[in-house]
Amino acid sequence: MTVPGCPLCEKAGGRVVLQTPKWRLIHAQEAGFPAFYRLVWQEHVREFSQLARADRIVVVDVLAAVEQAMLQSLHPAKVNLASLGNAVPHLHWHVIARFDWDSHFPGAVWAALQREADAARVQQVAAALPGLEEAFKTALLA
Amino acid sequence: MTVPGCPLCEKAGGRVVLQTPKWRLIHAQEAGFPAFYRLVWQEHVREFSQLARADRIVVVDVLAAVEQAMLQSLHPAKVNLASLGNAVPHLHWHVIARFDWDSHFPGAVWAALQREADAARVQQVAAALPGLEEAFKTALLA
Repeated sequence: MTVPGCPLCEKAGGRVVLQTPKWRLIHAQEAGFPAFYRLVWQEHVREFSQLARADRIVVVDVLAAVEQAMLQSLHPAKVNLASLGNAVPHLHWHVIARFDWDSHFPGAVWAALQREADAARVQQVAAALPGLEEAFKTALLA
Repeated sequence: MTVPGCPLCEKAGGRVVLQTPKWRLIHAQEAGFPAFYRLVWQEHVREFSQLARADRIVVVDVLAAVEQAMLQSLHPAKVNLASLGNAVPHLHWHVIARFDWDSHFPGAVWAALQREADAARVQQVAAALPGLEEAFKTALLA
């Protein structure tokens, strides 16, 4: 089902890194957060619990694989996982590698700015994304 | 493993609603968000993907049951799920029933205040929590 006016039904929502008939992984392109990805359910589903249990497990397997690849490739301070959807109620999960030097750490990325992002370090993480995305493919399309 | 100084190893972190050897569900008691619960993994684990797959599925089954009970008992605008842990890196999931009248909607609860919470509606949701928590028990301890 495609819902007219839903931005995640009508558009990818970012650069598509991987996709299958059930889900797509996009690079979110949020300034200051180079390793910010979103796992988007292809079908328009509002709440996580409205997925069939087997599909919830698909989501969790993908989230865990993305997180593991981030931990191994980027060595972040923490990975953040969140499904909010207040503004865009089409099921999507934020998967964000967080660093102690990032603009909002230890706050949530939606919270108040703590400092300016360190441009050199942002660039360093951005440079590691091709390797990270290869790791996503290895883990998820095997 | 108990980590000295970890607030979720040393204390419950809120009012315990349900617990099993693997996890506990606490009422978070965050002002303005009456239906804000946290699912805390009993063992000190840092990242979700560091759980065994069977345990990740336990987490997801609990999250889905809590969310479903919220949807049926409270009819929120949206349920928010998040595992951040930047400040307290002991695995816990926020499960929050959000309402279009709440103080931060449609922003994240960590984002800027949008308006004062509607005290009468906060009280109305608070009054529904005993029924909600009975529904948690029915779903999770069956």
